[in-house]
Amino acid sequence: MLEKTTRMNYLYDFYYSLLTPKQQSYMSLYYLDDYSLGEIAEEYDVSRQAVYDNIKRTEAMLEEYEEKLLLFQKFQERSKLLRHVKELLNEEHPSKQAMLEVVAELEKLD
Amino acid sequence: MLEKTTRMNYLYDFYYSLLTPKQQSYMSLYYLDDYSLGEIAEEYDVSRQAVYDNIKRTEAMLEEYEEKLLLFQKFQERSKLLRHVKELLNEEHPSKQAMLEVVAELEKLD
Repeated sequence: MLEKTTRMNYLYDFYYSLLTPKQQSYMSLYYLDDYSLGEIAEEYDVSRQAVYDNIKRTEAMLEEYEEKLLLFQKFQERSKLLRHVKELLNEEHPSKQAMLEVVAELEKLD
Repeated sequence: MLEKTTRMNYLYDFYYSLLTPKQQSYMSLYYLDDYSLGEIAEEYDVSRQAVYDNIKRTEAMLEEYEEKLLLFQKFQERSKLLRHVKELLNEEHPSKQAMLEVVAELEKLD
């Protein structure tokens, strides 16, 4: 569950601008502010089931966007390559060749 | 017009997966394969006006996606920073500090 929460937080971060204001509100209360379904239902004066259905649909939409645009996946790959560059720069005599190879990998990601 | 074509090619490249199959077909014939509106209309047995309207709507959608997700803008910023890294690596004694600063800029883009 923790892993799913982390993933949803990332997906929300990348794709929230594609959601409706209501989807944004429910998702950010549930995933960022850790409200329960019941608390959100009370806040918006709707049924707990309505909140649950909306959040489930939104989660599925976020996964669909990720399937199409891969922003989270590319972010992870890019982060890994940037960490690698920083490790190389920590060495006393960083290899230019190794650095150029990482830069080429970064370029390929776009 | 050439500038607009280049921009549309890029936006199409970033967001085509969010379009319908028909939108993808018309856009790729018009922008990538340089078909005229009349040629596309003939190919799909629809009016020239229908093709024109579809393409105009799709262009507006692509601009809306870019406004929300900024993938093209971030790509341009990232490309500039990666060119800068390569220039630094071309120097005889690249400054580690300068390189780390560019890496930090790249991280901020995500």
